Amino acid sequence: MEQNRYERGVQRLKEVDDIAGENVITSLSDISPDLGRYIIEFGFGDIYSRSGLSLQQRELATIAALTAMGTAQPQLKVHLHAGLNVGLSRTEITETILQMALYAGFPAALNAMFAAKEIFAEVDKREIV
Amino acid sequence: MEQNRYERGVQRLKEVDDIAGENVITSLSDISPDLGRYIIEFGFGDIYSRSGLSLQQRELATIAALTAMGTAQPQLKVHLHAGLNVGLSRTEITETILQMALYAGFPAALNAMFAAKEIFAEVDKREIV
Amino acid sequence: MEQNRYERGVQRLKEVDDIAGENVITSLSDISPDLGRYIIEFGFGDIYSRSGLSLQQRELATIAALTAMGTAQPQLKVHLHAGLNVGLSRTEITETILQMALYAGFPAALNAMFAAKEIFAEVDKREIV
Amino acid sequence: MEQNRYERGVQRLKEVDDIAGENVITSLSDISPDLGRYIIEFGFGDIYSRSGLSLQQRELATIAALTAMGTAQPQLKVHLHAGLNVGLSRTEITETILQMALYAGFPAALNAMFAAKEIFAEVDKREIV
Amino acid sequence: MEQNRYERGVQRLKEVDDIAGENVITSLSDISPDLGRYIIEFGFGDIYSRSGLSLQQRELATIAALTAMGTAQPQLKVHLHAGLNVGLSRTEITETILQMALYAGFPAALNAMFAAKEIFAEVDKREIV
Amino acid sequence: MEQNRYERGVQRLKEVDDIAGENVITSLSDISPDLGRYIIEFGFGDIYSRSGLSLQQRELATIAALTAMGTAQPQLKVHLHAGLNVGLSRTEITETILQMALYAGFPAALNAMFAAKEIFAEVDKREIV
Repeated sequence: MEQNRYERGVQRLKEVDDIAGENVITSLSDISPDLGRYIIEFGFGDIYSRSGLSLQQRELATIAALTAMGTAQPQLKVHLHAGLNVGLSRTEITETILQMALYAGFPAALNAMFAAKEIFAEVDKREIV
Repeated sequence: MEQNRYERGVQRLKEVDDIAGENVITSLSDISPDLGRYIIEFGFGDIYSRSGLSLQQRELATIAALTAMGTAQPQLKVHLHAGLNVGLSRTEITETILQMALYAGFPAALNAMFAAKEIFAEVDKREIV
Repeated sequence: MEQNRYERGVQRLKEVDDIAGENVITSLSDISPDLGRYIIEFGFGDIYSRSGLSLQQRELATIAALTAMGTAQPQLKVHLHAGLNVGLSRTEITETILQMALYAGFPAALNAMFAAKEIFAEVDKREIV
Repeated sequence: MEQNRYERGVQRLKEVDDIAGENVITSLSDISPDLGRYIIEFGFGDIYSRSGLSLQQRELATIAALTAMGTAQPQLKVHLHAGLNVGLSRTEITETILQMALYAGFPAALNAMFAAKEIFAEVDKREIV
Repeated sequence: MEQNRYERGVQRLKEVDDIAGENVITSLSDISPDLGRYIIEFGFGDIYSRSGLSLQQRELATIAALTAMGTAQPQLKVHLHAGLNVGLSRTEITETILQMALYAGFPAALNAMFAAKEIFAEVDKREIV
Repeated sequence: MEQNRYERGVQRLKEVDDIAGENVITSLSDISPDLGRYIIEFGFGDIYSRSGLSLQQRELATIAALTAMGTAQPQLKVHLHAGLNVGLSRTEITETILQMALYAGFPAALNAMFAAKEIFAEVDKREIV
């Protein structure tokens, strides 16, 4: 069953964001491969594989939380990309970030909005190429 | 137009959570009525009146953020109630909270889950009466 | 000179808030008297005894920070009282708290405003008696 | 193997703090039993079952982190008790808390120290009885 | 009146920090112009236009809060510059930052102090030119 | 005795991490030498000179806290280096960081793990040279 959790997690991570996800796992391989394994098993094999919320709802919740926390800029960027991947519109993403000004203040919303600007520009660039 | 923002905000707040919203505004009336006014004008007249996200999406994002922040238990309870009001299911709410364990740790998820337990029990009690 | 720092700290703490300060020190006496001693020596003997800012400015900065942090409600209450003690007006205090909505969000401002409401009521009660 | 993780987690949780751990799991049973299950499987079956750190080191790290975060008072109390259970001395615990004043400020250290005072008193009371 | 809020906000922002403020608004224009508009309308047209605190007190409070939060380095730099602009002395700024070591720990004070060092050097450079 | 605290602090800082510590103090010399002095006197002359915890326990607690806080990346790097200096193994350090996923979420653990990867690589490089 462990194997199942890992395989299910890898599968789910691919649906969410295959490139960014793989990058994180690879960059952990020489310092803490187990941290990478837990992200796949617990993060994607357990939590993101649950029913009850769509992947779009899950990414919207994650973007809201990481914006509000303000301590996880690299992970926010991964999930901004993942949000687009699973079908959130750019408007849904920027509205979610904007709303966080109410709960976590304008700096939190600003820093996340600039991250969104960066990710959207990267996506545009890839699409042109 | 200021008047419009205020009236629009009052209207929107009623759709979201009329009792809890009114309680906050009333309890501010003798210490900082302007803080209450800004919550209505900016929070509900501006932000929650925007298009681009449904009220259900807005409450899901807010519940995610307040769970992750861990510093706003009273406001989390208001929005747990508001989430139910605008049509989020209990499962959507508990799944959102559960997912926050990944981003903000188990204590954040636990404290929000116990808040949900409390709010759901309150709602059950009112409904029985 | 250690003695000097301690005595200077005790003196400074008395100017800022003699009752609340003493309560904290007393309540630490059986668990960590050294934490109490460091608050007096470093907090009040060193920092609050520095020139460059008035005590009113120091308390305004502290109230702003504790409001924004949202994790130090008991200490916020001590400094709301201390702020009044050193001559900040109630308006200066509520304006400072209100402004924090911009930087730390409405929940942070709300929770601090309710703390101010509580402290102002306590002060009113003592003054009537 | 899932079964193994759960059983290993239950076993490990018992070593760390059987009563407090059981209370958390029980209180989640009617709102989110899966959150309880993940705490056992991932928290205790995976992480706390790893080699590389002693249980005393693990509890010392947890007490330091929860003190510094300042958003997890109920969980801090559980781990103050667990710290004593796995053999940390009261001095090791209060020294850890005290040191956090350097990294997270005096309010964080104060609030955790008062939690330690409460837990130590509870333990004393049980021992007398 | 909306127009009034916006115009009053632009005016107030100019008094506080015309260049940095304009940069933020411009950089938001292609991703979320409304976030820029709210900062002007609500941030500067509403809050910073209130009476009850001087602009110097408002910037001192903001510098204290952003230092303590530790999640808003870009906005802290804007307000360090704004603080100088509205007449805070460098000593008042560094004393405010230093004091935050007590409430948010040394890392928060250190990171803000290095930001102040950077901003003061930038200002010196402009003044020499 | 002040002199004693300073000298004792310098001595203790040397035991913990002579290069990194000196860098911080030097870089503060033209903006706030007193902040550097307090870090030596209070941080190292008072706290790190206390008995009750070994230097290894102190660094483990600090690494745990800075990982969980997520707002002090530069100071985390200093203490990752200091941890190695006082005899923590790389495994003890990565296990401590990994465990923080439980309490502060995966982004906190990830960002600290990448900091550890960087510091370990730096140390390897120096050792080869």
